[in-house]
Amino acid sequence: MILTVTLNAALDITYRVPALRPHAAHRVTDVTERPGGKGLNVGRVLAALGHDVTVTGFVGGGTGRLIRERLTGVEDALVPVAGPSRRTVAVVDARTGDTTQLNEPGPLVTAAEWAAFLGVYGELVAGAEAVALCGSLPPGVPVGAYAGLVRTARAAGVPVLLDTSGEPLRRGVAARPDIIKPNSDELAELTGSHEPLKATQDARRRGARAVVASLGAEGLVAATDEGRWRAAPPARLRGNPTGAGDSASAGLLSALAEGLPWPARLTRAVALATATVLSPTAGDFDRTSYEELLGRVGVTTEVTAA
Amino acid sequence: MILTVTLNAALDITYRVPALRPHAAHRVTDVTERPGGKGLNVGRVLAALGHDVTVTGFVGGGTGRLIRERLTGVEDALVPVAGPSRRTVAVVDARTGDTTQLNEPGPLVTAAEWAAFLGVYGELVAGAEAVALCGSLPPGVPVGAYAGLVRTARAAGVPVLLDTSGEPLRRGVAARPDIIKPNSDELAELTGSHEPLKATQDARRRGARAVVASLGAEGLVAATDEGRWRAAPPARLRGNPTGAGDSASAGLLSALAEGLPWPARLTRAVALATATVLSPTAGDFDRTSYEELLGRVGVTTEVTAA
Repeated sequence: MILTVTLNAALDITYRVPALRPHAAHRVTDVTERPGGKGLNVGRVLAALGHDVTVTGFVGGGTGRLIRERLTGVEDALVPVAGPSRRTVAVVDARTGDTTQLNEPGPLVTAAEWAAFLGVYGELVAGAEAVALCGSLPPGVPVGAYAGLVRTARAAGVPVLLDTSGEPLRRGVAARPDIIKPNSDELAELTGSHEPLKATQDARRRGARAVVASLGAEGLVAATDEGRWRAAPPARLRGNPTGAGDSASAGLLSALAEGLPWPARLTRAVALATATVLSPTAGDFDRTSYEELLGRVGVTTEVTAA
Repeated sequence: MILTVTLNAALDITYRVPALRPHAAHRVTDVTERPGGKGLNVGRVLAALGHDVTVTGFVGGGTGRLIRERLTGVEDALVPVAGPSRRTVAVVDARTGDTTQLNEPGPLVTAAEWAAFLGVYGELVAGAEAVALCGSLPPGVPVGAYAGLVRTARAAGVPVLLDTSGEPLRRGVAARPDIIKPNSDELAELTGSHEPLKATQDARRRGARAVVASLGAEGLVAATDEGRWRAAPPARLRGNPTGAGDSASAGLLSALAEGLPWPARLTRAVALATATVLSPTAGDFDRTSYEELLGRVGVTTEVTAA
């Protein structure tokens, strides 16, 4: 079983409007909604790849109920809280294709609720082959939360991937996660460097055993204790990048759980991320494209000295 | 019992953001939500005035469940449908105070669901002292829906107020409702005239027994078979006009149910609408202001020939 943790689970709502004009009233022509938050997205992709997946984190209120009802293909071990789970609203302008995002903050988690989660997490980790810790922290959760969760997983001998940003990432890295997967902005914020090769090495020195940085359409760059690689899709492709980073995390974990070496992990991550960009539905991946891309992702060894 | 009908009930969500910028991501700093749709708003104000209120119309899906859970002070006779009730999202820009509105379309109502509603409505009307038919029609409901609902109420001898717009208003007026309460745009669309006194008379000729037009901060103008009046607040007041029209409808129905003459009905409507503008919470009315305003609304007889 692979465990994914989503402390600030969301109901992701997408509205399509003919054209977004501030201060006007808009008739929404199309509404879609589904469970969101990075950990639930990673879990959905892992389940689609055939893994046993358990999802945990917090849900509450009417929105939490809607999130739970829409979970499919994963084991629901979410912990209830009194506050309401957040919605995110993505408003897509049909004229330009641009998206305007509105993100609710999420429930205020009490100390007792956080303690209850730690108990559930400790039990689940004991039965997991890998753990993904993903996304932002809801109000009330201590900023060092991920550091503690990383330590619990490491103490249990379970490999752990951390995908977050800002201070929770900075603190989490110090607890020595097996993999972090920042995008270039998150990596620059962590290390102060905008040069990915240098920054990935710096992030390793801060504690991460492996750093896999996502560089958008250019693919991934990885710094690990087994070597350094770049992995890139065969061509620059047009599409919707929403969820591509979560698909990359799922690819890394999936291949890690299967005991594959780093180049194969990176190939799977880039193929999944690219197949997500190519999918007509944001956050889903196109299976035919994925299988075809597995043979076409280029992985090259980086030989530059650190 | 006063019956209010909301065929396209909504969950009204308000988001406060520091500043709305298209194509950016926004952290929502404040979230409020409550049942909406004009009929539910009118029902809430009537209940606050001490009336027995029953609300009907359609609700469905997870949003419908949230609407029902949040109804307070009214009898819930909403009819379930398979499709999901709509959300409306009002995004308030904290810098300018301006609101950008996103309105979902509402559930697709089937012929069988419409027939089920007509059965419920017929039973409820028989026990009602007045009926309010309010708001837009969800997809699938016939455009002549309000005309039929007006006829049912009239056949039962129950006075009926109609507050809608466009073709549903045009058709509904022909069925001879006791009161229609258009705003100046709706009245101009119905009659082709932008001159309220002329237009209210024209709308009476189309079938409405009484026409009460809301002119925003200038108050109301009424054309009835007992005379014509203007009713205005004592001063132009700053505030949020959201829900003021629904409060005016509630005032008209409340005074009608108590057997008060037209000038007293208009006084109550203007006092409630003004106290709604003055309330810090959109759509609620400030009770102290309301009671104080009852003595200060000016009602004048219109003597201009039609």
